[in-house]
Amino acid sequence: MFTDEYFMKMALQEAETALEKDEVPVGCIIVSNNRIIARSHNLTETLNDVTAHAEMQAITSAANYLGGKYLQNCTIYITLEPCVMCCGALNWSQISKVVIGARDEQRGFINKNLTLHPKTEVVTGILENECSEIVKGFFRAKR
Amino acid sequence: MFTDEYFMKMALQEAETALEKDEVPVGCIIVSNNRIIARSHNLTETLNDVTAHAEMQAITSAANYLGGKYLQNCTIYITLEPCVMCCGALNWSQISKVVIGARDEQRGFINKNLTLHPKTEVVTGILENECSEIVKGFFRAKR
Repeated sequence: MFTDEYFMKMALQEAETALEKDEVPVGCIIVSNNRIIARSHNLTETLNDVTAHAEMQAITSAANYLGGKYLQNCTIYITLEPCVMCCGALNWSQISKVVIGARDEQRGFINKNLTLHPKTEVVTGILENECSEIVKGFFRAKR
Repeated sequence: MFTDEYFMKMALQEAETALEKDEVPVGCIIVSNNRIIARSHNLTETLNDVTAHAEMQAITSAANYLGGKYLQNCTIYITLEPCVMCCGALNWSQISKVVIGARDEQRGFINKNLTLHPKTEVVTGILENECSEIVKGFFRAKR
């Protein structure tokens, strides 16, 4: 039951909430022992703050829940590949696993040869089409 | 009067405040039209949050002051070269100028071949010795 697809669907629900607010539709959740301990979506426009990416909020929220700043034994499910900022934050967090929906060839960290913490496992391509389509549809509608 | 050294001294005062809290002593200020619109220091231990670097807080604070998320016509003075996370955030902010005190060869963005926004001017080496010495002294005392 608790598959990567199961949790990525929850992250997609967050992306849909962002879309309703006319935000770039990216969502994420953080899971610890099959329990969701943080959920968030991009709020850069709503908060007028470039740092308000889904991942940044979720990292802060999960650390607050856990009472410590390191996210060991945690997995983050993100609908879109993290940018440089979020990659840096995930690196500092020492999170155990990063599961990515759609790749972001232009803004994502992978093509910039950045790496996460040596302990962090990375999985890509989970619900890739749905995660990609929601972002593409958003920008298509903006043009 | 309003030289880079003048404003870097203010950033150093923030680093000293961090030191008093037993935080890695990094401080920064953001200036717009020779006026300080944000000041902050590293609070990762106090807030139990890896994202609470001085620059991240200052970017959010300055955007809040300006009422917009882009920091055009702003200069950030930082005592230590920004890490990957803060480099990514500064890139998104489109800040006009980044003035750095001490280099951080290991954790800083420059050696990782990351760049800021094409419009952003970067200056390094302002009060380099003082900015470097406060961090080195902190880690020396920890050993």
